[in-house]
Amino acid sequence: MTNNSLGFDPAGRYTARATDVFEDRGMSHTGRARALLLALSLSFGTAAGAGAQERSVENGVSQFALANGMQVVVIPDHRAPIVTHMVWYKVGSADEPPGKSGIAHFFEHLMFKGTKNHKAGEFGAAIAAIGGSENAFTSYDYTAYHQTVEADALETMMTFEADRMRNLILTDEVIGPERDVILEERRSRVETSPDALLDEEKDATLYQNHPYRIPVIGWMHEIEQLNRADAVAFYDRYYAPNNAVLVVAGDVDEATVRRLADKTYGLVPRGPDLPPRVRPQEPEHNTRRTVTLKDARISVPSFGTSWLAPSYTTDSDGEAEALDILSEVLGGGTRSRIHQELVVRQGIASSAGAYYSGSLLDTTSFTVYGAPRGAATLEQIEAAVRAEVAKIVKDGVTADEVEKAKTRFLRSVIFARDSQSSMANIYGATLATGGTIADIDEWPDRIKAVTAEQVRAVAAKYLDYDRSVTGYLLPADQAPN
Amino acid sequence: MTNNSLGFDPAGRYTARATDVFEDRGMSHTGRARALLLALSLSFGTAAGAGAQERSVENGVSQFALANGMQVVVIPDHRAPIVTHMVWYKVGSADEPPGKSGIAHFFEHLMFKGTKNHKAGEFGAAIAAIGGSENAFTSYDYTAYHQTVEADALETMMTFEADRMRNLILTDEVIGPERDVILEERRSRVETSPDALLDEEKDATLYQNHPYRIPVIGWMHEIEQLNRADAVAFYDRYYAPNNAVLVVAGDVDEATVRRLADKTYGLVPRGPDLPPRVRPQEPEHNTRRTVTLKDARISVPSFGTSWLAPSYTTDSDGEAEALDILSEVLGGGTRSRIHQELVVRQGIASSAGAYYSGSLLDTTSFTVYGAPRGAATLEQIEAAVRAEVAKIVKDGVTADEVEKAKTRFLRSVIFARDSQSSMANIYGATLATGGTIADIDEWPDRIKAVTAEQVRAVAAKYLDYDRSVTGYLLPADQAPN
Repeated sequence: MTNNSLGFDPAGRYTARATDVFEDRGMSHTGRARALLLALSLSFGTAAGAGAQERSVENGVSQFALANGMQVVVIPDHRAPIVTHMVWYKVGSADEPPGKSGIAHFFEHLMFKGTKNHKAGEFGAAIAAIGGSENAFTSYDYTAYHQTVEADALETMMTFEADRMRNLILTDEVIGPERDVILEERRSRVETSPDALLDEEKDATLYQNHPYRIPVIGWMHEIEQLNRADAVAFYDRYYAPNNAVLVVAGDVDEATVRRLADKTYGLVPRGPDLPPRVRPQEPEHNTRRTVTLKDARISVPSFGTSWLAPSYTTDSDGEAEALDILSEVLGGGTRSRIHQELVVRQGIASSAGAYYSGSLLDTTSFTVYGAPRGAATLEQIEAAVRAEVAKIVKDGVTADEVEKAKTRFLRSVIFARDSQSSMANIYGATLATGGTIADIDEWPDRIKAVTAEQVRAVAAKYLDYDRSVTGYLLPADQAPN
Repeated sequence: MTNNSLGFDPAGRYTARATDVFEDRGMSHTGRARALLLALSLSFGTAAGAGAQERSVENGVSQFALANGMQVVVIPDHRAPIVTHMVWYKVGSADEPPGKSGIAHFFEHLMFKGTKNHKAGEFGAAIAAIGGSENAFTSYDYTAYHQTVEADALETMMTFEADRMRNLILTDEVIGPERDVILEERRSRVETSPDALLDEEKDATLYQNHPYRIPVIGWMHEIEQLNRADAVAFYDRYYAPNNAVLVVAGDVDEATVRRLADKTYGLVPRGPDLPPRVRPQEPEHNTRRTVTLKDARISVPSFGTSWLAPSYTTDSDGEAEALDILSEVLGGGTRSRIHQELVVRQGIASSAGAYYSGSLLDTTSFTVYGAPRGAATLEQIEAAVRAEVAKIVKDGVTADEVEKAKTRFLRSVIFARDSQSSMANIYGATLATGGTIADIDEWPDRIKAVTAEQVRAVAAKYLDYDRSVTGYLLPADQAPN
């Protein structure tokens, strides 16, 4: 498992939120790469309705629903005789009951245990036997399971996946040892990592009411208390076809997927009707906040300043698109203002940039970050980044910058679409957060429509240092900010 | 209504938490004075069992329960022909469902509306007609209603109070206008007050999981959404005799109280059996945090640093008692170290001190604060306070200081006990948070047992600046810390 701890990473903008929890079960690419694929997908999630229930086809991608309410998306890709099979549950850590942090991720682990029909490990062994790969991940807003296998193994995947949707054996004998595994995972991924600890407390300082303040993996003292009753309640409430999206990409056609899905998932009865996913929202913020962690293991200090910002789901009037372009112009890569000024021209930063995570179901954040190089100080870097923010708020950006940023941004999406699993991720994440296929199709045009003035406007509206949260990661001997 | 905004007030240690909401309905003394009385009482709340159900008498105070589970405490006081009649419900803002902040306080307002038997205002008019006074308040852990009247009006008070326990008329016509009243109250008490806004966001930065992070009055955007269904659900769950404590102090005897209580409260049926009051607890804290509010209305800057600390309910081995003495020695009044050093000797502070709110049901906080005088800067004051904390952590306190602090501390309690309503508050608050009469009786001896080494030990254990939260209230033109 990889707990992607990004925070101040220059690639940050392309990754999912720092605390998403990715499992590592035999996939060959790294957690970082998976995060990249996923997050590209996430940029598409938007508001809109609950997704079409009738059949529709757009750009070769078809969508329909099974009789039990399970949504299905088929993305034909005949370049190689493989398929990517994913099931997305519309439940993530932000849906957990108070005091039960970690149950969504815990449950993801439990899904790899035995069912009434298959012993633990049988599913994985079947995938390995045919040279396939599998993985699963939990985020704030969804939990997903996927396999990439040769095309004629699709029915087997569906059979196993449909089986564990309702037939898990959840006994204390299963749950106790797995809780120990997760506690150890948290120890090794978070408790021993100063950045991870800082990220957690910074998130909990940025969000004061919304459950995004709570780490996806859960807090140690609450994971310790998770039990069989919690697991069963979570399973019975959220793991059901009417709360899931099936995505099949690859060397397959719609008719086959429909036939196989009806034979497998189609036999699983509907679960409870769930209310809309309304979580407690943030109050107005009126203060500048800092969160400082000093640790002997840190040699180079770093900082990251975050602001609450609308997501694609919560925004109005294209603000999310403008924030995406702002992050690109301000600090999205080597052509960005922050990189050019701090890393290239002044040479004071080892890394510096900006990122925006537009994909969340609720209010998200915009972040700038930096770390000094050589004799430069953290204060210098922070001031230089702040100056770049101030410059955009005051003078805006040029039309040329915006056009170039759009081109870079859209090129990365085209690149992502070239990957089968990445396409599957795009559709799965979008539908699992209430978006539609039309949102995905229209998104490039919405990006192209962003104007320089909109970019300046969202910078001025959201990047207010008097309503910000800055995390400082400092060597043990450095005076606090 | 007075929303006691203390934070950095030198009298802080004697007040209830900053955000407790006290109603102002004709009582003559100020919110601050009421807070003082209440908080003295709160120092007694401790763990222990659910309180005796059988009759018991200790120091003239008797306790028993009605058949429907309502706890009753009688505190005879025959100095004047008056009685203080209080009903405490074991529900406060920290028991609210997520997203429904403010419903406990909102409900307190609704209790002054009409019932099936009495029009709105009738109860208040009956009290006013006999020259009595009444009030109500909502805190994190309880909600209380009380009247002080001539002794022979006790039955009338009980009749009205028992009536509104179950017979309120909760229609949209009642709830809508009262919500507007509360929104306006929040606007005038919080939104227009820089200290109140800072206190709220500082609390939400100190607590990242526990509901003490949420203001008692509620957040604006959530109060706006509170509706009839929320009010009815809250009423039906929490307003019942088996979730209430009746306290009668004054010119009355146990037999009379029992007879009248049976005739009035005794006729109200039991409500649902409630589970133990287990709220989400704090994760481990690993960072130093700051919260800064700059405002043009501020002329003198101030700061307050808080740490999580055990309360009387959560502590072990007398730590709460030691923290009480620590707050007294360090910054509890004019004889304290901080006051002597900063205000008297150096003359750099207009106010500076420390307080500890030991009375909460869950993990509470310990705070030091200060504001500069004349040419002194906020940085100077903060450093000087920090130096006093460091001195105690390193060198401890003297036995003589501890003894004098105990004497001052206990004297204030004796003074409080001289007041009838204060006595009623002590017993009500203790029983409403799961304490017992024995806790109250034994508390002075537990304070007397605190040693100098225990005081140093709790300072070293809890006052760690690397795990603290500091709030800064700054003039608009001051550079941020």
